[in-house]
Amino acid sequence: MRVYDIIYKKRNSEELRADEIKFMISSYTKGDIPDYQMAAFLMAVFIRGMSDKELALLTTAMTDSGDVMDLSDIKGVKIDKHSTGGVGDGISLALAPLVASFGVIVPMMSGRGLGHTGGTLDKLESIPGFNVNLSASDFRAQLKKIGVAIIGQTEKVAPADKKIYALRDVTATVDSIPLIAASIMSKKLAEGCDGLLLDVKTGSGAFMKSLEDSKLIAKVMVSIGKNSGKKMWAIISDMNQPLGRAIGNSLEIKQTVDILKGGGPDDFKNLLLEIAARMLILADIEQDIEKAKSSVAKNIKSGAALKKFSEMVECQGGKPSVADTPHKLLPQSKFAEDIKSEKNGCISAIQTDTIGMCALELGAGRMKKEDVIDYSAGIILNKKIGDKVSKGDVLATFYYNKPRMHLGEIKEKFLNAFSITAVSPAKMKMIYDEIK
Amino acid sequence: MRVYDIIYKKRNSEELRADEIKFMISSYTKGDIPDYQMAAFLMAVFIRGMSDKELALLTTAMTDSGDVMDLSDIKGVKIDKHSTGGVGDGISLALAPLVASFGVIVPMMSGRGLGHTGGTLDKLESIPGFNVNLSASDFRAQLKKIGVAIIGQTEKVAPADKKIYALRDVTATVDSIPLIAASIMSKKLAEGCDGLLLDVKTGSGAFMKSLEDSKLIAKVMVSIGKNSGKKMWAIISDMNQPLGRAIGNSLEIKQTVDILKGGGPDDFKNLLLEIAARMLILADIEQDIEKAKSSVAKNIKSGAALKKFSEMVECQGGKPSVADTPHKLLPQSKFAEDIKSEKNGCISAIQTDTIGMCALELGAGRMKKEDVIDYSAGIILNKKIGDKVSKGDVLATFYYNKPRMHLGEIKEKFLNAFSITAVSPAKMKMIYDEIK
Repeated sequence: MRVYDIIYKKRNSEELRADEIKFMISSYTKGDIPDYQMAAFLMAVFIRGMSDKELALLTTAMTDSGDVMDLSDIKGVKIDKHSTGGVGDGISLALAPLVASFGVIVPMMSGRGLGHTGGTLDKLESIPGFNVNLSASDFRAQLKKIGVAIIGQTEKVAPADKKIYALRDVTATVDSIPLIAASIMSKKLAEGCDGLLLDVKTGSGAFMKSLEDSKLIAKVMVSIGKNSGKKMWAIISDMNQPLGRAIGNSLEIKQTVDILKGGGPDDFKNLLLEIAARMLILADIEQDIEKAKSSVAKNIKSGAALKKFSEMVECQGGKPSVADTPHKLLPQSKFAEDIKSEKNGCISAIQTDTIGMCALELGAGRMKKEDVIDYSAGIILNKKIGDKVSKGDVLATFYYNKPRMHLGEIKEKFLNAFSITAVSPAKMKMIYDEIK
Repeated sequence: MRVYDIIYKKRNSEELRADEIKFMISSYTKGDIPDYQMAAFLMAVFIRGMSDKELALLTTAMTDSGDVMDLSDIKGVKIDKHSTGGVGDGISLALAPLVASFGVIVPMMSGRGLGHTGGTLDKLESIPGFNVNLSASDFRAQLKKIGVAIIGQTEKVAPADKKIYALRDVTATVDSIPLIAASIMSKKLAEGCDGLLLDVKTGSGAFMKSLEDSKLIAKVMVSIGKNSGKKMWAIISDMNQPLGRAIGNSLEIKQTVDILKGGGPDDFKNLLLEIAARMLILADIEQDIEKAKSSVAKNIKSGAALKKFSEMVECQGGKPSVADTPHKLLPQSKFAEDIKSEKNGCISAIQTDTIGMCALELGAGRMKKEDVIDYSAGIILNKKIGDKVSKGDVLATFYYNKPRMHLGEIKEKFLNAFSITAVSPAKMKMIYDEIK
């Protein structure tokens, strides 16, 4: 088999065979194919696209390039969730223990924040002592013991994806829906779960700004997962404003505790119920969404979900009391400043990625992988889309630790991200569509 | 300027600016852009194509990456010819001195044979002592003295093209009409000629098998040349059978002498007249093709062209007597074997590239650049398309030096390349189209 012929076929829009795709991926991972040939191949894939069959084969080949978790000896159905990322999307923090409180095994491998989006691992690390770097055997032991663990991906998970992603990053082949889908799914397939709930975000704070692209990537990921024998369910949910009220790591942990205690912002709680209900259906514990949602609400009300959260924190090295008195344990910022509206009207739109960038500039995120996160920094939103505001009303509070930073600039950028108009906007949906 | 953004633009089918194209080519030639980025760029160009303007800019950038000959101090109009290559296409050998016999300066930089096609330089080197590796100053001196020289391209001509071609060769981006056109023209523009006659071959022995592709590449090359201020004229000529009767290096030199003495095969002579006439028109020496053709015929009949040929041979280190008694000077093969028809009928088609490969296997060509050519090996065709043959008639004679070779296989392949049918084929055109 010759690399040249495989590039040639893809360039001419011909469908590649399984052995050809496996050969490309495994040889490239081993270093037997030079970057320039893979770069030409990726550009051909970018422009010509891939069939569902090819994409499933590509994803499996990337998964098989590294360690694949075998959780078959752990009793119970294993269901995970993946979000394509947004601003204030800390759903996983509450969701994983909540779903595990029903006996579902939740083997979650999460990521870190980059750019305007936050990452589950960073948020958990704002809990002093919390360890996301469990070994495979500790991960398995914790799943056996309490049914839930949230960890980072090891270097051994899908190394082909890492190497290919680095090349895509410098050859203008990142923003391809099939390649993004294959990249995400190659890592998810390595977790050894039976089913996966995908939360594909759409809107001004999402990577996919258009509903059409969001639907397409959801469809592609569901197809890849099903081709690999996984139970799949994708929802397309709103990211035209930050989810909930907290943006920033310890701020989102605090909100998680509020939610699991039965409080917290309504939009966040509603989405949590929708997702958890679907995961229970994927796990065959429930059949009907409305019924499942009320079961989920019961496990919040009973404290079962909060208890599971504190067990998880304890198992992974944090103090379980974070579930009772988070303000005593979580880092607090030195400064807090209210940001007030300069206009009268109704909030009709929020440029959500800008809000994420403001939180990043306050210290809550990272622009480059090497940047260090300030766990206590961030933003608490006081007003959201549809809210009426008067000049001088507090829109949000900024939390930060570095007095030298250009607060004025961030504040201006933040205020400009709000569209305050005379007319109220139409009520927005939380879930636009779903694909099973 | 960032390479990433340029790849991104081309990937999205946006037109590149002059500074972007210059930056890509000059930085890549200097080694400042890695192969993997250029590979992604080339695949994007391959699939998305380039506008006429982009292509002219790309070609100029490749030309400007190396030395560009300035022949402005040499009196006379400088006109060159380029053929896209075929089997038995030794036109340049007779054409260059023939056109120079009218006072036109012919500064010809030629190539070597590869695969089924022969190369002008190899053919000339079958003349003992002939030197194709003149320095730029010797090249200029010879042009001043006798008006014609045929040499190889130095390493300093269009180094960008050499580097890019090597990368295209391993990334399945060779067979792109715009990229092929830019590659050829980048070298031709470095010659410093005022006008260029392009002989684009079409048919079973050409690189472009279809008339449509041949017309397209001719159109693209004419456009590139005109954009660079050159007088351009392209013909699309037949390569559905070998041109003339000789295939092989010294065999084609011998045929050249026959032609310049007024003999030789009709098809070869006719094409020579057509091309030479157009070059005289490009040089403003003639205005009308038919009148120009009769002038050309006169310069053959008078011996002026043959005299120029012998001057060129002498200037470049060969013995001028090759023009009188070529058989005494040129290497002769040890073996000759007649290949006889096994059928009765009329030759209706010839798989011409197969004939070229048979000559190569007899020793006349090279499969890889490193292969050594056997100058005396080759094929003399006795029958061509339209000829009636009876079983046992000699179709051709093989000339070769290695008795150990699998002659049986070559013979079988050769015979299978001829379609011998009961019905005579329609008369074929020599020139299908022309583009000015």
